[in-house]
Amino acid sequence: MGLSDLYLVDPKLFPHERAGWRAASAGDVLENATVVDTFEEAIADCGLVVGTSARGRRIPWPLVNPRACAEQVYPELDKHPVALVFGREDRGLTNDELQRCNLHVNIPASEDYSSLNLGMAVQVITYELRMRHLQGSLSDNPMQEWDTKFAKVDDIERFFIHLEETLIDMNFLKPEAPKQLMTRLRRLFSRTRMDDLEVKMLRGILTSAQQWVGRGSKKEP
Amino acid sequence: MGLSDLYLVDPKLFPHERAGWRAASAGDVLENATVVDTFEEAIADCGLVVGTSARGRRIPWPLVNPRACAEQVYPELDKHPVALVFGREDRGLTNDELQRCNLHVNIPASEDYSSLNLGMAVQVITYELRMRHLQGSLSDNPMQEWDTKFAKVDDIERFFIHLEETLIDMNFLKPEAPKQLMTRLRRLFSRTRMDDLEVKMLRGILTSAQQWVGRGSKKEP
Repeated sequence: MGLSDLYLVDPKLFPHERAGWRAASAGDVLENATVVDTFEEAIADCGLVVGTSARGRRIPWPLVNPRACAEQVYPELDKHPVALVFGREDRGLTNDELQRCNLHVNIPASEDYSSLNLGMAVQVITYELRMRHLQGSLSDNPMQEWDTKFAKVDDIERFFIHLEETLIDMNFLKPEAPKQLMTRLRRLFSRTRMDDLEVKMLRGILTSAQQWVGRGSKKEP
Repeated sequence: MGLSDLYLVDPKLFPHERAGWRAASAGDVLENATVVDTFEEAIADCGLVVGTSARGRRIPWPLVNPRACAEQVYPELDKHPVALVFGREDRGLTNDELQRCNLHVNIPASEDYSSLNLGMAVQVITYELRMRHLQGSLSDNPMQEWDTKFAKVDDIERFFIHLEETLIDMNFLKPEAPKQLMTRLRRLFSRTRMDDLEVKMLRGILTSAQQWVGRGSKKEP
Protein backbone atom coordinates (compact mmCIF):
# COMPACT_ATOMS: atom_id res chain seq x y z
CA MET A 1 0.00 0.00 0.00
CA GLY A 2 3.02 2.30 -0.35
CA LEU A 3 4.25 2.28 3.26
CA SER A 4 7.87 1.36 3.90
CA ASP A 5 8.97 2.04 7.49
CA LEU A 6 8.15 -0.96 9.64
CA TYR A 7 9.06 -0.89 13.33
CA LEU A 8 8.89 -4.10 15.32
CA VAL A 9 8.73 -3.78 19.09
CA ASP A 10 10.46 -6.60 20.93
CA PRO A 11 9.49 -9.34 18.45
CA LYS A 12 9.43 -12.89 19.81
CA LEU A 13 11.02 -14.34 16.70
CA PHE A 14 12.76 -12.16 14.16
CA PRO A 15 13.90 -12.73 11.52
CA HIS A 16 11.74 -15.79 10.93
CA GLU A 17 11.18 -17.92 7.87
CA ARG A 18 7.39 -17.77 8.17
CA ALA A 19 7.41 -13.97 8.25
CA GLY A 20 9.51 -14.13 5.09
CA TRP A 21 7.06 -16.14 3.04
CA ARG A 22 4.07 -14.32 4.42
CA ALA A 23 5.58 -11.03 3.26
CA ALA A 24 5.59 -12.50 -0.26
CA SER A 25 6.83 -9.86 -2.70
CA ALA A 26 7.14 -7.22 0.02
CA GLY A 27 10.17 -8.90 1.57
CA ASP A 28 12.14 -5.65 1.34
CA VAL A 29 9.85 -3.97 3.87
CA LEU A 30 10.49 -6.80 6.30
CA GLU A 31 14.25 -6.84 5.68
CA ASN A 32 14.50 -3.10 6.29
CA ALA A 33 12.40 -3.26 9.46
CA THR A 34 13.76 -1.51 12.54
CA VAL A 35 13.70 -3.61 15.69
CA VAL A 36 13.33 -1.71 18.97
CA ASP A 37 13.02 -2.84 22.58
CA THR A 38 10.18 -0.60 23.67
CA PHE A 39 7.11 1.02 22.25
CA GLU A 40 8.40 4.40 23.48
CA GLU A 41 11.48 4.09 21.27
CA ALA A 42 9.36 3.30 18.25
CA ILE A 43 7.22 6.43 18.57
CA ALA A 44 9.83 8.82 20.01
CA ASP A 45 10.22 11.05 16.93
CA CYS A 46 6.59 10.97 15.81
CA GLY A 47 4.36 14.03 15.63
CA LEU A 48 1.17 12.00 15.58
CA VAL A 49 0.54 8.56 17.03
CA VAL A 50 -2.51 6.58 15.97
CA GLY A 51 -3.44 3.40 17.80
CA THR A 52 -5.72 0.67 16.52
CA SER A 53 -8.38 -0.16 19.03
CA ALA A 54 -11.19 -2.64 19.39
CA ARG A 55 -14.53 -1.39 20.62
CA GLY A 56 -15.37 -0.94 24.25
CA ARG A 57 -12.26 0.40 25.91
CA ARG A 58 -12.83 1.82 29.36
CA ILE A 59 -11.46 5.33 28.83
CA PRO A 60 -12.97 6.99 25.77
CA TRP A 61 -10.39 8.55 23.51
CA PRO A 62 -10.77 10.48 20.26
CA LEU A 63 -11.92 7.64 17.99
CA VAL A 64 -12.18 7.58 14.20
CA ASN A 65 -12.97 5.06 11.49
CA PRO A 66 -10.22 4.10 9.01
CA ARG A 67 -11.38 6.58 6.35
CA ALA A 68 -11.48 9.52 8.76
CA CYS A 69 -8.11 8.34 10.06
CA ALA A 70 -6.58 8.59 6.58
CA GLU A 71 -8.16 12.03 6.14
CA GLN A 72 -6.48 13.23 9.29
CA VAL A 73 -3.15 11.43 8.93
CA TYR A 74 -2.38 12.01 5.26
CA PRO A 75 -1.89 15.80 5.33
CA GLU A 76 0.50 15.40 8.29
CA LEU A 77 2.85 12.99 6.54
CA ASP A 78 4.82 15.90 5.05
CA LYS A 79 5.30 17.54 8.43
CA HIS A 80 6.54 14.81 10.73
CA PRO A 81 6.68 11.04 11.11
CA VAL A 82 3.29 9.54 11.92
CA ALA A 83 3.03 6.21 13.75
CA LEU A 84 0.27 3.73 13.00
CA VAL A 85 0.39 1.38 15.95
CA PHE A 86 -0.90 -2.17 15.78
CA GLY A 87 -1.14 -4.45 18.80
CA ARG A 88 -0.52 -8.10 19.40
CA GLU A 89 -2.40 -10.72 17.39
CA ASP A 90 -4.09 -12.11 20.50
CA ARG A 91 -4.85 -9.07 22.66
CA GLY A 92 -4.11 -5.87 20.75
CA LEU A 93 -2.63 -2.85 22.47
CA THR A 94 -2.60 -2.45 26.25
CA ASN A 95 -4.48 0.44 27.85
CA ASP A 96 -1.14 1.98 28.72
CA GLU A 97 -0.05 1.85 25.08
CA LEU A 98 -3.38 3.24 23.88
CA GLN A 99 -3.03 6.19 26.23
CA ARG A 100 0.18 7.20 24.51
CA CYS A 101 -1.73 7.67 21.25
CA ASN A 102 -3.24 10.97 20.10
CA LEU A 103 -5.99 9.23 18.24
CA HIS A 104 -7.59 5.80 18.16
CA VAL A 105 -8.84 4.14 15.00
CA ASN A 106 -11.43 1.39 14.97
CA ILE A 107 -12.47 -0.79 12.02
CA PRO A 108 -16.27 -1.03 12.08
CA ALA A 109 -16.43 -4.81 11.68
CA SER A 110 -19.59 -6.83 12.10
CA GLU A 111 -20.62 -6.86 15.75
CA ASP A 112 -21.27 -10.59 15.65
CA TYR A 113 -17.56 -11.30 15.46
CA SER A 114 -14.63 -10.40 17.60
CA SER A 115 -11.90 -8.18 16.28
CA LEU A 116 -10.02 -8.66 13.01
CA ASN A 117 -6.79 -10.55 12.55
CA LEU A 118 -3.76 -8.30 12.88
CA GLY A 119 -2.82 -8.62 9.19
CA MET A 120 -6.34 -7.69 8.11
CA ALA A 121 -6.35 -4.61 10.33
CA VAL A 122 -3.04 -3.47 8.86
CA GLN A 123 -4.43 -4.03 5.35
CA VAL A 124 -7.53 -1.93 5.96
CA ILE A 125 -5.78 1.01 7.65
CA THR A 126 -3.01 1.17 5.05
CA TYR A 127 -5.46 0.70 2.17
CA GLU A 128 -7.35 3.79 3.32
CA LEU A 129 -4.11 5.78 3.34
CA ARG A 130 -3.37 4.50 -0.15
CA MET A 131 -6.83 5.57 -1.36
CA ARG A 132 -6.31 9.00 0.20
CA HIS A 133 -2.93 9.21 -1.54
CA LEU A 134 -4.55 8.39 -4.86
CA GLN A 135 -7.46 10.77 -4.32
CA GLY A 136 -8.11 12.71 -7.48
CA SER A 137 -6.01 10.42 -9.63
CA LEU A 138 -8.44 7.52 -9.38
CA SER A 139 -11.21 7.55 -11.90
CA ASP A 140 -14.77 6.53 -11.07
CA ASN A 141 -15.23 5.75 -14.72
CA PRO A 142 -15.16 1.98 -15.26
CA MET A 143 -14.27 2.50 -18.93
CA GLN A 144 -11.28 4.74 -18.32
CA GLU A 145 -8.75 2.45 -19.93
CA TRP A 146 -10.09 1.13 -23.15
CA ASP A 147 -8.09 -0.32 -26.03
CA THR A 148 -10.10 1.33 -28.81
CA LYS A 149 -11.57 4.82 -29.26
CA PHE A 150 -15.21 5.15 -28.35
CA ALA A 151 -17.51 5.58 -31.34
CA LYS A 152 -18.68 9.10 -32.11
CA VAL A 153 -22.35 9.99 -32.02
CA ASP A 154 -22.43 10.33 -35.84
CA ASP A 155 -21.07 6.83 -36.34
CA ILE A 156 -23.53 5.38 -33.86
CA GLU A 157 -26.38 7.20 -35.59
CA ARG A 158 -25.31 5.78 -38.98
CA PHE A 159 -25.27 2.35 -37.36
CA PHE A 160 -28.85 2.79 -36.11
CA ILE A 161 -29.96 3.85 -39.61
CA HIS A 162 -28.17 0.86 -41.10
CA LEU A 163 -29.76 -1.41 -38.49
CA GLU A 164 -33.23 -0.09 -39.25
CA GLU A 165 -32.75 -0.48 -43.03
CA THR A 166 -31.55 -4.03 -42.57
CA LEU A 167 -34.45 -4.99 -40.33
CA ILE A 168 -36.83 -3.53 -42.92
CA ASP A 169 -35.01 -5.45 -45.69
CA MET A 170 -35.45 -8.59 -43.60
CA ASN A 171 -39.16 -7.83 -43.14
CA PHE A 172 -38.53 -8.05 -39.40
CA LEU A 173 -39.41 -4.40 -38.92
CA LYS A 174 -42.60 -3.24 -40.57
CA PRO A 175 -42.48 0.54 -41.14
CA GLU A 176 -46.27 0.73 -40.97
CA ALA A 177 -46.26 -0.97 -37.51
CA PRO A 178 -42.82 -0.34 -36.06
CA LYS A 179 -43.93 -0.85 -32.47
CA GLN A 180 -41.15 -0.04 -30.02
CA LEU A 181 -38.53 -2.11 -31.79
CA MET A 182 -36.07 0.65 -32.71
CA THR A 183 -36.55 2.38 -29.38
CA ARG A 184 -35.64 -0.78 -27.53
CA LEU A 185 -32.67 -1.46 -29.80
CA ARG A 186 -31.47 2.11 -29.37
CA ARG A 187 -31.72 1.76 -25.63
CA LEU A 188 -29.78 -1.50 -25.68
CA PHE A 189 -26.88 -0.19 -27.77
CA SER A 190 -26.77 3.20 -26.11
CA ARG A 191 -26.42 1.72 -22.67
CA THR A 192 -23.04 0.26 -23.50
CA ARG A 193 -20.66 2.81 -24.84
CA MET A 194 -19.62 1.17 -28.08
CA ASP A 195 -16.12 1.58 -29.40
CA ASP A 196 -15.14 2.10 -33.07
CA LEU A 197 -14.31 -1.55 -33.63
CA GLU A 198 -17.58 -2.75 -32.19
CA VAL A 199 -19.61 -0.42 -34.43
CA LYS A 200 -17.57 -1.50 -37.46
CA MET A 201 -18.12 -5.16 -36.54
CA LEU A 202 -21.88 -4.74 -36.15
CA ARG A 203 -22.15 -2.84 -39.44
CA GLY A 204 -20.22 -5.67 -41.11
CA ILE A 205 -22.79 -8.11 -39.78
CA LEU A 206 -25.64 -5.91 -41.04
CA THR A 207 -24.09 -5.65 -44.51
CA SER A 208 -23.67 -9.41 -44.60
CA ALA A 209 -27.29 -9.87 -43.56
CA GLN A 210 -28.43 -7.45 -46.27
CA GLN A 211 -26.47 -9.43 -48.86
CA TRP A 212 -28.17 -12.66 -47.79
CA VAL A 213 -31.51 -10.95 -48.00
CA GLY A 214 -30.53 -9.75 -51.50
CA ARG A 215 -29.56 -13.23 -52.63
CA GLY A 216 -32.66 -14.78 -51.07
CA SER A 217 -34.87 -12.22 -52.82
CA LYS A 218 -33.35 -12.96 -56.23
CA LYS A 219 -34.19 -16.63 -55.96
CA GLU A 220 -37.81 -15.89 -55.39
CA PRO A 221 -39.59 -15.31 -58.64
CA MET B 1 -17.38 -7.53 7.32
CA GLY B 2 -20.99 -8.77 7.36
CA LEU B 3 -20.89 -11.18 4.41
CA SER B 4 -22.06 -14.73 4.98
CA ASP B 5 -22.43 -16.72 1.75
CA LEU B 6 -19.11 -18.28 0.85
CA TYR B 7 -18.87 -20.45 -2.27
CA LEU B 8 -15.78 -22.56 -2.82
CA VAL B 9 -15.14 -23.79 -6.35
CA ASP B 10 -13.44 -27.18 -6.49
CA PRO B 11 -11.26 -26.68 -3.41
CA LYS B 12 -8.11 -28.80 -3.22
CA LEU B 13 -8.54 -29.48 0.48
CA PHE B 14 -11.83 -28.88 2.25
CA PRO B 15 -12.58 -28.99 5.07
CA HIS B 16 -9.06 -28.43 6.33
CA GLU B 17 -7.69 -27.73 9.79
CA ARG B 18 -5.62 -24.76 8.63
CA ALA B 19 -8.64 -23.08 7.08
CA GLY B 20 -10.38 -23.59 10.42
CA TRP B 21 -7.87 -21.71 12.52
CA ARG B 22 -7.31 -19.06 9.92
CA ALA B 23 -11.04 -18.31 9.99
CA ALA B 24 -10.62 -17.59 13.72
CA SER B 25 -13.96 -16.39 15.11
CA ALA B 26 -15.65 -16.54 11.69
CA GLY B 27 -15.69 -20.33 11.61
CA ASP B 28 -19.44 -20.32 10.97
CA VAL B 29 -18.94 -18.72 7.55
CA LEU B 30 -16.51 -21.49 6.64
CA GLU B 31 -18.74 -24.27 8.03
CA ASN B 32 -21.70 -22.99 6.04
CA ALA B 33 -19.71 -22.65 2.83
CA THR B 34 -21.20 -24.15 -0.32
CA VAL B 35 -18.81 -26.31 -2.31
CA VAL B 36 -19.40 -26.46 -6.06
CA ASP B 37 -17.54 -28.16 -8.90
CA THR B 38 -17.47 -25.31 -11.37
CA PHE B 39 -17.35 -21.53 -11.41
CA GLU B 40 -20.49 -21.54 -13.58
CA GLU B 41 -22.48 -23.25 -10.82
CA ALA B 42 -21.31 -20.73 -8.28
CA ILE B 43 -22.52 -17.72 -10.26
CA ALA B 44 -25.57 -19.29 -11.94
CA ASP B 45 -28.26 -17.36 -10.00
CA CYS B 46 -26.38 -14.07 -9.76
CA GLY B 47 -27.60 -10.82 -11.29
CA LEU B 48 -24.19 -9.19 -11.13
CA VAL B 49 -20.78 -10.81 -11.19
CA VAL B 50 -17.72 -8.86 -10.12
CA GLY B 51 -14.27 -10.30 -10.70
CA THR B 52 -11.08 -9.21 -8.95
CA SER B 53 -8.38 -8.47 -11.43
CA ALA B 54 -4.73 -7.50 -11.35
CA ARG B 55 -3.58 -4.75 -13.67
CA GLY B 56 -2.63 -5.31 -17.25
CA ARG B 57 -5.07 -7.85 -18.60
CA ARG B 58 -5.10 -8.11 -22.34
CA ILE B 59 -8.78 -7.41 -22.97
CA PRO B 60 -9.93 -4.23 -21.22
CA TRP B 61 -13.16 -4.67 -19.30
CA PRO B 62 -15.18 -2.19 -17.27
CA LEU B 63 -12.80 -1.67 -14.35
CA VAL B 64 -13.46 0.01 -11.00
CA ASN B 65 -11.60 0.56 -7.74
CA PRO B 66 -12.93 -1.08 -4.55
CA ARG B 67 -14.83 2.03 -3.43
CA ALA B 68 -16.59 2.48 -6.77
CA CYS B 69 -17.26 -1.27 -6.72
CA ALA B 70 -19.08 -1.00 -3.39
CA GLU B 71 -21.03 2.01 -4.71
CA GLN B 72 -22.24 -0.05 -7.64
CA VAL B 73 -22.76 -3.36 -5.88
CA TYR B 74 -24.45 -2.26 -2.67
CA PRO B 75 -27.74 -0.97 -4.13
CA GLU B 76 -28.11 -4.22 -6.11
CA LEU B 77 -27.90 -6.50 -3.08
CA ASP B 78 -31.65 -6.15 -2.49
CA LYS B 79 -32.49 -7.13 -6.04
CA HIS B 80 -30.51 -10.28 -6.76
CA PRO B 81 -27.51 -12.24 -5.56
CA VAL B 82 -24.23 -10.55 -6.43
CA ALA B 83 -21.03 -12.57 -6.78
CA LEU B 84 -17.68 -11.20 -5.72
CA VAL B 85 -15.24 -13.53 -7.40
CA PHE B 86 -11.71 -14.07 -6.11
CA GLY B 87 -9.12 -16.10 -7.96
CA ARG B 88 -6.40 -18.50 -6.90
CA GLU B 89 -3.70 -17.37 -4.47
CA ASP B 90 -0.96 -17.90 -7.06
CA ARG B 91 -2.48 -16.76 -10.34
CA GLY B 92 -5.85 -15.14 -9.76
CA LEU B 93 -8.73 -15.63 -12.17
CA THR B 94 -8.23 -16.97 -15.68
CA ASN B 95 -9.10 -14.79 -18.66
CA ASP B 96 -12.02 -17.11 -19.33
CA GLU B 97 -13.35 -16.59 -15.81
CA LEU B 98 -12.83 -12.83 -16.01
CA GLN B 99 -14.84 -12.70 -19.21
CA ARG B 100 -17.85 -14.10 -17.39
CA CYS B 101 -17.86 -11.09 -15.09
CA ASN B 102 -19.88 -7.92 -15.70
CA LEU B 103 -17.36 -5.78 -13.93
CA HIS B 104 -13.75 -6.04 -12.86
CA VAL B 105 -12.43 -4.54 -9.64
CA ASN B 106 -8.78 -3.72 -9.07
CA ILE B 107 -7.11 -2.71 -5.80
CA PRO B 108 -4.78 0.19 -6.58
CA ALA B 109 -1.76 -1.25 -4.77
CA SER B 110 1.72 0.19 -5.04
CA GLU B 111 3.11 -0.44 -8.49
CA ASP B 112 6.44 -1.60 -7.07
CA TYR B 113 4.87 -4.81 -5.83
CA SER B 114 2.96 -7.59 -7.45
CA SER B 115 -0.63 -8.20 -6.54
CA LEU B 116 -2.02 -8.63 -3.03
CA ASN B 117 -2.42 -11.90 -1.19
CA LEU B 118 -5.86 -13.42 -1.70
CA GLY B 119 -6.94 -12.86 1.91
CA MET B 120 -5.93 -9.20 1.74
CA ALA B 121 -7.88 -8.67 -1.46
CA VAL B 122 -10.98 -10.20 0.13
CA GLN B 123 -10.50 -7.97 3.19
CA VAL B 124 -10.30 -4.77 1.13
CA ILE B 125 -13.26 -5.49 -1.16
CA THR B 126 -15.52 -6.60 1.69
CA TYR B 127 -14.39 -3.72 3.91
CA GLU B 128 -15.54 -1.27 1.26
CA LEU B 129 -18.95 -2.96 1.15
CA ARG B 130 -19.11 -2.74 4.94
CA MET B 131 -18.27 0.98 4.82
CA ARG B 132 -20.95 1.48 2.19
CA HIS B 133 -23.41 -0.40 4.38
CA LEU B 134 -22.57 1.84 7.34
CA GLN B 135 -22.72 5.03 5.27
CA GLY B 136 -24.58 7.71 7.18
CA SER B 137 -24.37 5.85 10.48
CA LEU B 138 -20.63 6.37 10.86
CA SER B 139 -19.62 9.60 12.47
CA ASP B 140 -16.62 11.62 11.34
CA ASN B 141 -16.48 13.10 14.79
CA PRO B 142 -13.62 11.56 16.79
CA MET B 143 -15.29 12.61 20.05
CA GLN B 144 -18.65 11.00 19.35
CA GLU B 145 -18.56 8.65 22.29
CA TRP B 146 -17.39 10.48 25.34
CA ASP B 147 -17.96 9.49 28.96
CA THR B 148 -18.65 13.01 30.24
CA LYS B 149 -20.66 15.93 28.89
CA PHE B 150 -18.66 18.55 27.06
CA ALA B 151 -18.28 21.82 28.94
CA LYS B 152 -20.56 24.66 27.93
CA VAL B 153 -19.15 27.91 26.60
CA ASP B 154 -20.16 29.74 29.79
CA ASP B 155 -18.26 27.32 31.99
CA ILE B 156 -15.20 27.51 29.78
CA GLU B 157 -15.37 31.32 29.87
CA ARG B 158 -15.54 31.27 33.67
CA PHE B 159 -12.52 28.99 33.64
CA PHE B 160 -10.56 31.47 31.52
CA ILE B 161 -11.49 34.34 33.90
CA HIS B 162 -10.45 32.20 36.86
CA LEU B 163 -7.20 31.30 35.08
CA GLU B 164 -6.42 34.97 34.37
CA GLU B 165 -7.17 36.01 37.98
CA THR B 166 -4.94 33.26 39.29
CA LEU B 167 -2.07 34.19 37.01
CA ILE B 168 -2.40 37.81 38.11
CA ASP B 169 -2.47 36.70 41.78
CA MET B 170 0.71 34.74 41.11
CA ASN B 171 2.30 37.80 39.50
CA PHE B 172 2.90 35.61 36.47
CA LEU B 173 0.61 37.74 34.32
CA LYS B 174 1.17 41.47 34.55
CA PRO B 175 -2.03 43.32 33.54
CA GLU B 176 0.01 46.33 32.39
CA ALA B 177 2.07 44.07 30.03
CA PRO B 178 -0.11 41.02 29.32
CA LYS B 179 1.71 40.14 26.11
CA GLN B 180 -0.02 37.25 24.30
CA LEU B 181 -0.25 35.02 27.32
CA MET B 182 -4.04 34.73 27.63
CA THR B 183 -4.46 34.47 23.88
CA ARG B 184 -2.09 31.54 23.75
CA LEU B 185 -3.71 29.86 26.74
CA ARG B 186 -7.14 30.36 25.23
CA ARG B 187 -5.95 28.79 22.02
CA LEU B 188 -4.48 25.82 23.85
CA PHE B 189 -7.60 25.03 25.88
CA SER B 190 -10.03 25.76 23.06
CA ARG B 191 -8.34 23.34 20.71
CA THR B 192 -9.27 20.40 22.85
CA ARG B 193 -12.94 20.26 23.58
CA MET B 194 -12.89 20.05 27.35
CA ASP B 195 -15.51 18.09 29.22
CA ASP B 196 -17.23 19.10 32.47
CA LEU B 197 -14.92 17.05 34.66
CA GLU B 198 -11.81 18.45 33.06
CA VAL B 199 -12.94 22.05 33.57
CA LYS B 200 -13.88 21.24 37.18
CA MET B 201 -10.46 19.65 37.72
CA LEU B 202 -8.58 22.63 36.28
CA ARG B 203 -10.58 25.11 38.34
CA GLY B 204 -9.80 23.04 41.43
CA ILE B 205 -6.10 23.37 40.62
CA LEU B 206 -6.50 27.14 40.14
CA THR B 207 -8.31 27.53 43.47
CA SER B 208 -5.58 25.55 45.18
CA ALA B 209 -2.94 27.75 43.57
CA GLN B 210 -4.77 30.90 44.70
CA GLN B 211 -4.87 29.58 48.28
CA TRP B 212 -1.10 29.00 48.24
CA VAL B 213 -0.58 32.50 46.91
CA GLY B 214 -2.82 33.81 49.73
CA ARG B 215 -0.85 31.92 52.39
CA GLY B 216 2.45 33.02 50.91
CA SER B 217 1.31 36.65 50.88
CA LYS B 218 0.29 36.55 54.55
CA LYS B 219 3.76 35.53 55.65
CA GLU B 220 5.29 38.52 53.99
CA PRO B 221 5.14 41.57 56.18
